[in-house]
Amino acid sequence: MKYSEYSKEQLLLEKAKLEEEYNRFKSKGLKLDMSRGKPGADQLAVSNGLLDAITSRDWENNAGNHSLEYRNYGLLTGIIECKEIFADLLEVPVDNVIVCGNSSLNLMFDYITQCMMTGSDGIPWKDQGTIKFLCPCPGYDRHFAIAQYYGMELIPVRLTGNGPDMDQVERLVKDPAVKGMFCVPKYSNPTGETYSAETVDRIARLEPAAADFRIIWDNAYIIHDLTEKSDELVNIFDALKKYGHEDMVVEFTSTSKISFPGAGVAALAASDRNIEIIKKRMTVQTIGYDKINQYRHVKYYKDIDGIKRHMKLHREILAPKFRAVIDAFENGIGEYGVANWTEPNGGYFISLDVMPGTAKRVGELCKNGGVTLTNIGAPYPYGIDPEDKNIRIAPSYPPVNELLEATRLLCICVKLAAVEKLLSVI
Amino acid sequence: MKYSEYSKEQLLLEKAKLEEEYNRFKSKGLKLDMSRGKPGADQLAVSNGLLDAITSRDWENNAGNHSLEYRNYGLLTGIIECKEIFADLLEVPVDNVIVCGNSSLNLMFDYITQCMMTGSDGIPWKDQGTIKFLCPCPGYDRHFAIAQYYGMELIPVRLTGNGPDMDQVERLVKDPAVKGMFCVPKYSNPTGETYSAETVDRIARLEPAAADFRIIWDNAYIIHDLTEKSDELVNIFDALKKYGHEDMVVEFTSTSKISFPGAGVAALAASDRNIEIIKKRMTVQTIGYDKINQYRHVKYYKDIDGIKRHMKLHREILAPKFRAVIDAFENGIGEYGVANWTEPNGGYFISLDVMPGTAKRVGELCKNGGVTLTNIGAPYPYGIDPEDKNIRIAPSYPPVNELLEATRLLCICVKLAAVEKLLSVI
Repeated sequence: MKYSEYSKEQLLLEKAKLEEEYNRFKSKGLKLDMSRGKPGADQLAVSNGLLDAITSRDWENNAGNHSLEYRNYGLLTGIIECKEIFADLLEVPVDNVIVCGNSSLNLMFDYITQCMMTGSDGIPWKDQGTIKFLCPCPGYDRHFAIAQYYGMELIPVRLTGNGPDMDQVERLVKDPAVKGMFCVPKYSNPTGETYSAETVDRIARLEPAAADFRIIWDNAYIIHDLTEKSDELVNIFDALKKYGHEDMVVEFTSTSKISFPGAGVAALAASDRNIEIIKKRMTVQTIGYDKINQYRHVKYYKDIDGIKRHMKLHREILAPKFRAVIDAFENGIGEYGVANWTEPNGGYFISLDVMPGTAKRVGELCKNGGVTLTNIGAPYPYGIDPEDKNIRIAPSYPPVNELLEATRLLCICVKLAAVEKLLSVI
Repeated sequence: MKYSEYSKEQLLLEKAKLEEEYNRFKSKGLKLDMSRGKPGADQLAVSNGLLDAITSRDWENNAGNHSLEYRNYGLLTGIIECKEIFADLLEVPVDNVIVCGNSSLNLMFDYITQCMMTGSDGIPWKDQGTIKFLCPCPGYDRHFAIAQYYGMELIPVRLTGNGPDMDQVERLVKDPAVKGMFCVPKYSNPTGETYSAETVDRIARLEPAAADFRIIWDNAYIIHDLTEKSDELVNIFDALKKYGHEDMVVEFTSTSKISFPGAGVAALAASDRNIEIIKKRMTVQTIGYDKINQYRHVKYYKDIDGIKRHMKLHREILAPKFRAVIDAFENGIGEYGVANWTEPNGGYFISLDVMPGTAKRVGELCKNGGVTLTNIGAPYPYGIDPEDKNIRIAPSYPPVNELLEATRLLCICVKLAAVEKLLSVI
């Protein structure tokens, strides 16, 4: 029966029961963490072979081949074999790819910084008054943090389940102060949704008032499926080409959740014009990124098929964790009508919507009970969830037994907060 | 006999002889390169062991120790063991060190960008009108390129052989638009000079009009000796402390020329206050740098003594190359009074001063003869050597036989350009 159909007496009884359950958990002195979208130890282990992919024998007697110089300065845009793999992954020409260091976040930060200091392709954003950025949300807090760091105005955009609300986006880009938008188009963080073909098409044909409008297309989960059947995402550059809008999007990805978050390879893809502008900055910024690590990835994965095979290993570890959390939700809170959650086909998160106005309270209860959740509100601009209902669940990091324990406590907290809320308005 | 004492007839005879020698070289169709301050293949080979320092066995069975998580996200300022090594190298407390990716140039670019966008510690430089930067020269062209990229005004400062002309610097910093200075304090690129104790002290006690004045202390050749006897450089932070000026300097270094330019580790050292401000930016910029590569360096070198032992291997390769070039200069141009050159105790360059007004011509002659030199003028702000006399010689990259061949041609070109010049004013 749904809590909304409970009488006051039933709610009070339920509250007492939940508090007893909660205190029983609390007394265990748990210290569990569902906050971080990072691979668990078992996932890290499946990539250990990467560490053996290159040895000194690769350069024995300085054996001459085109990799001879990978240890030296140079090759600003990355080594060709690695560019080819990313070109295959992103489905773009190899000349439109730049392979860099270990962090795509760093690439996005650098790109936005470049737009601020010298412009995306025109007047520097810093010289154009207050800049606004569209933030489909719930979204990735570290995106929003970059825009906020540079004093931009963050404008929330509703996510529909098929990507951003394009009616809203089309309206908002009529404002020339709106200079860009953050997108995680596949298995979006945290909702897990993949932008539909229609959404991608409407994005591609946007006609923003700002000619220097740029979309940060963060394809972080491009190949990070949790099921046999991958979500289909239309290639953004194919879509842009139809409208002659290739310069509007810069795409980013990395192997952080393919190989190692601490030692992967990040890349970007962009139009000829944007690559030219980005290279102009990079030429001043560095002589080149870590080419040995790029080569290490090439030797380990060999090609896109090697990466696909590798991702199955991650899936085998991740899918049961997602299943466990979703099952626990179904069993623990399903019948009470106090929460909805996503069942994503990929990515790193389950997005849990609890009873509006109770998310912060759930976070507080969990914390006091020994389970750390992602900061409530973090996936929203300025860290404020206007409905106080969204909780980002990251099932990847804890071992399954800890994950189950944490989810059981979470279910109790979701229910307890809902009952408290209902009682407060009776 | 010096060319200046030659009669016109003697000069004409000499010119004809030199042209013949030059053409004989030219006909060989050489393709030699003395332009790039990068290690040669033999130097790269001495670091190949780095590639074996880490294998999957380091994480066998996910063996738990504090390095377990080095493969994952986190540890923004670097892994502790690597920070300790850089703290020993830079002689600063470990908390004042941040260890990053592979490029110290990138760290300097990021730091200057940060000063532009959000200030060094106060109002963003971008909001303070035209910014000026002091450029001791001849210096490192990539430093100057950063300042120029951001539209700063580059002010040349004379180098004395003991560091910058401090009378000039003390005068210039009275201008509040002067926001900083580039310094390569040890084995300066390209003059090879090391700042004297007095220079360091005068730098440390500078009282710039701009409270947010910052010195980029690029200690790129901190341990890169060419002789048994290392030049002594006073620790800048010790000097700054005497005057309470710790915030005025940010120091940079890297293992680019210790391990591999393409896959080393870069670090910075700064005061508590500057570290705090830099971390505030880095927190938005990235989740962490490549920690596996940091750990690889730790396992390979173990400690500062390991690095010192390793640098002897580089020295054994580099010192004979420097000796060969200097000997060739002495034999080839010594007696004609048309050039001076440095004999550095360390670093990567010989600085050659040819007859004023002939450096460009020497560069042109060399190029046509098959030898590439560093672009003439590059070590000066805006690429303009006001006396047109300095040539940066990089002996590290070519094998000795090529180096000797290139130097022989260079000597001919230096003489030929001088004779042409003298004839033009007779």
